Amino acid sequence: MNYPLEIIAPSNYVLATAEAENAPIVLAGVLLSLIVIYLASKLGGELSRMLDFPPVLGELVGGVVVGASALHLLVFPESGATASDSMLMTVLQFFDDVSPEAINSIFESQSEAVSILAELGVIVLLFEIGLESDLRELQKVGSQAAVVAVVGVVAPFIAGTAGLMFLFNVPVIPAIFAGAALTATSIGITSKVLSELGHLKSQEGQIIVGAAVIDDVLGIIVLAVVASLAKTGEVDVFNVVYLIISASAFLIGSILLGKFFNKSFVFTAELFQTRGNIVIPAFIFALFMSFVANAIHLEAILGAFAAGLVLDETDKRNELDEQVIPIADILVPIFFVSVGAKVDLSVLNPVVPENRQGLILAVFLIVVAIIGKVITGWSVFGKPGINRLAIGVGMVPRGEVGLVFAGIGAASGALDKPLQAAIIIMVILTTFIAPPLLRFAFGDAPQDAVEEADAAS
Amino acid sequence: MNYPLEIIAPSNYVLATAEAENAPIVLAGVLLSLIVIYLASKLGGELSRMLDFPPVLGELVGGVVVGASALHLLVFPESGATASDSMLMTVLQFFDDVSPEAINSIFESQSEAVSILAELGVIVLLFEIGLESDLRELQKVGSQAAVVAVVGVVAPFIAGTAGLMFLFNVPVIPAIFAGAALTATSIGITSKVLSELGHLKSQEGQIIVGAAVIDDVLGIIVLAVVASLAKTGEVDVFNVVYLIISASAFLIGSILLGKFFNKSFVFTAELFQTRGNIVIPAFIFALFMSFVANAIHLEAILGAFAAGLVLDETDKRNELDEQVIPIADILVPIFFVSVGAKVDLSVLNPVVPENRQGLILAVFLIVVAIIGKVITGWSVFGKPGINRLAIGVGMVPRGEVGLVFAGIGAASGALDKPLQAAIIIMVILTTFIAPPLLRFAFGDAPQDAVEEADAAS
Repeated sequence: MNYPLEIIAPSNYVLATAEAENAPIVLAGVLLSLIVIYLASKLGGELSRMLDFPPVLGELVGGVVVGASALHLLVFPESGATASDSMLMTVLQFFDDVSPEAINSIFESQSEAVSILAELGVIVLLFEIGLESDLRELQKVGSQAAVVAVVGVVAPFIAGTAGLMFLFNVPVIPAIFAGAALTATSIGITSKVLSELGHLKSQEGQIIVGAAVIDDVLGIIVLAVVASLAKTGEVDVFNVVYLIISASAFLIGSILLGKFFNKSFVFTAELFQTRGNIVIPAFIFALFMSFVANAIHLEAILGAFAAGLVLDETDKRNELDEQVIPIADILVPIFFVSVGAKVDLSVLNPVVPENRQGLILAVFLIVVAIIGKVITGWSVFGKPGINRLAIGVGMVPRGEVGLVFAGIGAASGALDKPLQAAIIIMVILTTFIAPPLLRFAFGDAPQDAVEEADAAS
Repeated sequence: MNYPLEIIAPSNYVLATAEAENAPIVLAGVLLSLIVIYLASKLGGELSRMLDFPPVLGELVGGVVVGASALHLLVFPESGATASDSMLMTVLQFFDDVSPEAINSIFESQSEAVSILAELGVIVLLFEIGLESDLRELQKVGSQAAVVAVVGVVAPFIAGTAGLMFLFNVPVIPAIFAGAALTATSIGITSKVLSELGHLKSQEGQIIVGAAVIDDVLGIIVLAVVASLAKTGEVDVFNVVYLIISASAFLIGSILLGKFFNKSFVFTAELFQTRGNIVIPAFIFALFMSFVANAIHLEAILGAFAAGLVLDETDKRNELDEQVIPIADILVPIFFVSVGAKVDLSVLNPVVPENRQGLILAVFLIVVAIIGKVITGWSVFGKPGINRLAIGVGMVPRGEVGLVFAGIGAASGALDKPLQAAIIIMVILTTFIAPPLLRFAFGDAPQDAVEEADAAS
């Protein structure tokens, strides 16, 4: 029930916290946020499709429109926004008489809930991508994917760092930081576009996904190196070795463990007869793998991807696929719209002097960012006739991973304002340009892929 | 990515809040909570089914086992628990070195996220129940349902209040509060059991659901009266009139609005071609109705139920039904396990003297609670041969609604400890006894209902 003025606290406990008092208003805030997110994702996605762009681009743009750049309906405290910056909170205050202190705590609770839903969204997305990927196919292109990932980390890192130092006289530490930000690849955005184009299961698609996974692991290691460099001036070798070992152990271990878990999954799914007998055991596994990945300081989404890969090998995969689709449809847009909403396009405003300097640096970073990844397509060996441009373009979007690099750089004080702005602009541009570029690189989608995409929609 | 020691804050913003720093650990806490919830719900549900009880009873018991009564894996700050009471937080601290202040804020954020997920779970449950219910069927039994609801509010309220005053010498205000707590009916638990037994669409099922909805509205009005009595000693007539008018307007308005929205829903679902073209517009509508119900101080779940009823009238209902099932399978268990986890069975311990007095009061309240609702079955008119016992038993569970009454009574200071404990025990017992009783009242489920339930599972 909904008693905004009452304090809800069960029975023999005396503590009646402010959180409980505000619970119905926080719920109202989350409901409104979800309505905004779904409207933005659906209108953006459908418009994008009509204009012949991948729908996910429209979801990102929809997020920009409702987010910090324009309507301020969806803003987040970690970007420095307060309750008074949020149009949603203004709407809520219209319905409920809330004190100024309460509204800030409501805003933070609501934002945190939406962020957790977005995290669950990208976990479900990578689980679904794992389910759609084929472990044997991935192993076949594993060495190519590894080379693509390594080239895609080394080339933009060296070109970016050296260019900033020698062309723009940027000191070594910030130059290294900006170079590191160029190494990221957003597996979420790339894999979603591939899936929408019906190219996820192609050789190119599997190389891109494999390389993006490896890139994620490499990115974590690069960031650990750069962050310790920025903080202490030297590299924490122990941490780097720990990350390399734990990441390798996790990926190999999950595939080995998977063969065992496969059988028990099918067994329990057949034993269970109540509702959710397939999807709940699958989610327990996916969430467990995500937790393990998170606990050893990798990304949670890597665990979800591994879980999806493993369960793809079972007899239950078709039933599971079908049931995961609506869950993904509900949760994944929360992630993409949030990514868009967190982008602040005001860094593009050339009237601000700092932005002007940043824009010049940004042009350089964007060129390196695109070329440094596009060339990775030509590092693929032993696959004549493969679409090298598509592979290279598939590695271009930096997405949320790039924002994390920029955020850590900003927090550590290693980056000055113009360079921060330049990195943000690079991230925005590579993220938004990749979906249409990828569509272009693949040319017109093959007929069966189009049908498949239609059937899935 | 996952950088527990780093501060993540994008670019040109300087604010790096503690929330952002702890974000990966909060995520880890939510992932662990969900793993615990799904394990409890599935193991409990399957065991319950094997013992021939409705699965939802097992989910509630599973919640009790992992919750405040036993394992302390899932505890909530609004019940007075702190991070040190939570076994989950102890597990998290093993993986990450977190300061004592940080762990409390992580605990609160994680609990809040789980609570919001549980709220979304019961919203989706009532949306699904609305989709499974038939508006015309409900309208046919509307007058019977209204009588059942009114009798089910008046009979236990008068018997409970009078009994406490004259048999146990309880003062008038606490007696009225306890009497009010007896009026609640948990629509979530009742409708879930009906659905599991394959009786949701029967005449009895539709009368119970209709009566439970009306009971919810009556309950909100009763509580507003009682709460203002307890606080100021007099009834806030304006608030009561406001609630009656807004509730009626909402229910009638949503059905009228529904006829218009129906057409636009089918139109957009056909216009849209990207993924989620049916389920996202449906969710926008359901969340919007939930928000409106919440905003006019009704329960959010009433809005979700109305949205489901309305969309059940469209051509898209079969497709929508199918897609909502896996979403409900993932979200609904979070609600039931949380309800179980919030129950503290320590009030049943007769070694504590306060509990002994409470237990005696509880026996009286339980008798009134069961008889006062069971007799409602015999108030059904014009339906010869209807299963009156089943209707009466269907109104018995107090569930989360009863806990809210007890909580508000405790917070307002109107209830002393023994009476609080007695109400809690009454709520627990009526909630846990209703599923097997309902199964018994319906006798063996008809063959087609069993098949239907199997097919749905």
